Amino acid sequence: MTIFSKIINGELPSYKIRENEKFFAFLDIHPLVKGHTLVIPKIEVDKFFDMPENYLSEILVFAHPIAQAIEKAFSCNRCAISVVGIEVPHAHMHMVPLNTMDDLNFTRKKLTLTDAELKDCQQKILRFLPEN
Amino acid sequence: MTIFSKIINGELPSYKIRENEKFFAFLDIHPLVKGHTLVIPKIEVDKFFDMPENYLSEILVFAHPIAQAIEKAFSCNRCAISVVGIEVPHAHMHMVPLNTMDDLNFTRKKLTLTDAELKDCQQKILRFLPEN
Repeated sequence: MTIFSKIINGELPSYKIRENEKFFAFLDIHPLVKGHTLVIPKIEVDKFFDMPENYLSEILVFAHPIAQAIEKAFSCNRCAISVVGIEVPHAHMHMVPLNTMDDLNFTRKKLTLTDAELKDCQQKILRFLPEN
Repeated sequence: MTIFSKIINGELPSYKIRENEKFFAFLDIHPLVKGHTLVIPKIEVDKFFDMPENYLSEILVFAHPIAQAIEKAFSCNRCAISVVGIEVPHAHMHMVPLNTMDDLNFTRKKLTLTDAELKDCQQKILRFLPEN
């Protein structure tokens, strides 16, 4: 079972943002910038494009209100997305509030945030997510 | 009219990969790595998440066979995707054959390819795209 499946089923804690029957969104605890969120399918698929077609067609619709909430919660030009996926063998989409191209540079050092800072990021996003 | 709309309507040339009624895919002429492809909607929308919901639900389905062709055409771990979008005010999704995290680092110097090299990349991808 992947570390992400353990997060989905509650075996591992997470700063959850939202879930539906197919997807689960939560904060990346090694964020590039504050507000960095991951969206993952509830099925174990390694490569993003190996997800079934109904997952490919629904993941951006699921992510849409989260992107809008991230844009409102954090000072940024827009919410960027990225699928890299060579760290954890469970498809995941990064959502990152972006101001400069370097905000999405995965080779740079990640932030180390405290539990209180991560909870604050979570609450900031949830405040702008309707009917969570 | 954006530079991308001029590419869609043929006013500007491009190394086209595929199009349908909603989307157009073509090579990025300033690629991070060989095979770097852009997918854009045929409507002018600045921010990716401002695309209408039927575009959000179809863009990854449109991109799916292109990602598979890129993975077959270029030696890579997988096809990564990224939406940054602060360069051109017309929503666009990058598709990049990825081996290391640095392959998706938009702050690094882009490749300068000749027309022959770009045509070769185009042909390599098209070879693996059924019924183009």
